[in-house]
Amino acid sequence: MDENTYIQDILSQPAALLAALDRFDLDPLRPYTRALRNGEYDRLILTGMGASGYAAYPAWLQLLKAGFPAFWVDCAELSHYARPLITKRSFVWLISQSGRSAEILRLLDLMQATPPAAFIATTNDLASPLAQAAGLTLLLEAAVEETVSTRTYLNSLAISQLVARALCLEDLDPDYYDLRKAADGIASYLANWDEHLLTLEGLVGKPQHLLLVGRGPSMAAVLTGALIIGEAAKFPALALNAAQFRHGPLEMAGSQLTVLVFGGPDETAALNRHLLHELLGFGTAAFWLSPSPQGEIPALPMPQASGIGLPLAEIVPVQLLSVNLARQTGHVPGKFLYSGKVTITE
Amino acid sequence: MDENTYIQDILSQPAALLAALDRFDLDPLRPYTRALRNGEYDRLILTGMGASGYAAYPAWLQLLKAGFPAFWVDCAELSHYARPLITKRSFVWLISQSGRSAEILRLLDLMQATPPAAFIATTNDLASPLAQAAGLTLLLEAAVEETVSTRTYLNSLAISQLVARALCLEDLDPDYYDLRKAADGIASYLANWDEHLLTLEGLVGKPQHLLLVGRGPSMAAVLTGALIIGEAAKFPALALNAAQFRHGPLEMAGSQLTVLVFGGPDETAALNRHLLHELLGFGTAAFWLSPSPQGEIPALPMPQASGIGLPLAEIVPVQLLSVNLARQTGHVPGKFLYSGKVTITE
Repeated sequence: MDENTYIQDILSQPAALLAALDRFDLDPLRPYTRALRNGEYDRLILTGMGASGYAAYPAWLQLLKAGFPAFWVDCAELSHYARPLITKRSFVWLISQSGRSAEILRLLDLMQATPPAAFIATTNDLASPLAQAAGLTLLLEAAVEETVSTRTYLNSLAISQLVARALCLEDLDPDYYDLRKAADGIASYLANWDEHLLTLEGLVGKPQHLLLVGRGPSMAAVLTGALIIGEAAKFPALALNAAQFRHGPLEMAGSQLTVLVFGGPDETAALNRHLLHELLGFGTAAFWLSPSPQGEIPALPMPQASGIGLPLAEIVPVQLLSVNLARQTGHVPGKFLYSGKVTITE
Repeated sequence: MDENTYIQDILSQPAALLAALDRFDLDPLRPYTRALRNGEYDRLILTGMGASGYAAYPAWLQLLKAGFPAFWVDCAELSHYARPLITKRSFVWLISQSGRSAEILRLLDLMQATPPAAFIATTNDLASPLAQAAGLTLLLEAAVEETVSTRTYLNSLAISQLVARALCLEDLDPDYYDLRKAADGIASYLANWDEHLLTLEGLVGKPQHLLLVGRGPSMAAVLTGALIIGEAAKFPALALNAAQFRHGPLEMAGSQLTVLVFGGPDETAALNRHLLHELLGFGTAAFWLSPSPQGEIPALPMPQASGIGLPLAEIVPVQLLSVNLARQTGHVPGKFLYSGKVTITE
């Protein structure tokens, strides 16, 4: 076993996820679901910062797909430039594992002055200012982290998607099944984590420039992946929607660029696959990330998962890659140089 | 004079902006403004791709500030993952200089099946499928570009902000004044473009890793800046909201990182300034971009501008930087290797 805290945290994720699923109770959400159905809210606003905010992306798409006017807004931008978005008929859903970062505290202040109709929180800390202020707190139930978000991010993805489904009044049995299968898939995958580290080192090496692209719910892993590679390995990685990448930045293709292409849901997998082939044709080191790679394309090993479990599985190979890149750049994986665990400055 | 098309396009921007302002007519927008006031729309949806989409960011914030439920959504994500967002009571505003890129055509198809209440377009081509389909077309009035977006981007920023202000029923005289002042400021600045190129080369050099950060309306320059550096210089640059940067990626700070910090509006300038000082303290090469640098901090030369003119001025030093980086990496600035001017593949 490795003594590194970050690696230990990565390995602990499947157990932490299963524990959270066992403890999770959606019953207290029912009054909100009823009010939403009765048209008591003019809009839903999902907000957060960093990995917590990015974890809300798949839930946001689910709410949009169900026809709700749902906003996914950076908490810093919301509190400085978009305050009037929160009205007394709004449903605000704030996601923050710490429940006490600078932007969260600012938004709590603003909402005290003009309270929304409903305010729920997803957090890992029942004693946090966020949990104290929210009308309903949905706990992440993950052991506290000292470094990069791992357990709390996976549990945020699981809980926020379940909450979104519950708000849409869908039958959640298939979703619980997908999440438990993802936990199993990630556990099997992580059983060989040191082998995967070697595979990643052989395939990806030390890129000159690294880019992550995807679409739809995979954007959670694209954005969080770039964040944790920067945070854990001090290695700058770009994050782009695959379609946006075509609108100009594709010109960076060539031998100096390494691209991780997330296959994602069936709806857009063919488009992403086409992009991967195009990049390979331009001499770019491009790799496919999907539980079912199919055919002869360069792919990174990835855990089995499907449905709302897929976004959880998508981040795990990037976590291992960040460990490998940290070692190659001479850093202790996940050890902070400049930050604390909680961002206390805006 | 330089024969390079991209540089010529950069230099032509102030004249193209003034010409567009002279020709621009907001009268046809009045029925939409009236309908918006009468509550005939359930939401405003601003969408586009690449620089055109990013140009809509300041307009989006203006609409939110005025209390409208306004969405700013990537056109690719909208057409694949968020289609139900467009209802028969929605006001859709599609921004695309070409009016014919792949995602635009897909969205036009979808809207033909389920038309929104109102559909307006900002485009540079009256003959495009977009202009043909829209209920109202607001022309960018810029000469056609062959390479990276320059004139069309600046005019998109100007027109979209004017349209947003008109929808909010504000007195537009101060805004026209700010835009004309920005045109003057950019013209004065570009009169010494070759001198600024040398200054940029001396200050920024050839960074190992480059990051652009800002907040609020500066996000247009942050996102578009990274896009055009990738496109024109084949040099990968990261783009992040300054607050999001603190949530993890700040760990990349150090001598291998160069950061451009956009000062932006007064509301958040002090926060950005604090970040700049912190980065300098960590040994990072950090530069301030503001028309009024004040005090002894490393700053890049930038055109004078204020109000809604500021986002226009913010991109110009980045355009020159992209020219300089292209030359340093051995590329013809703005010459496409892989793409056409119009993105025809999703």
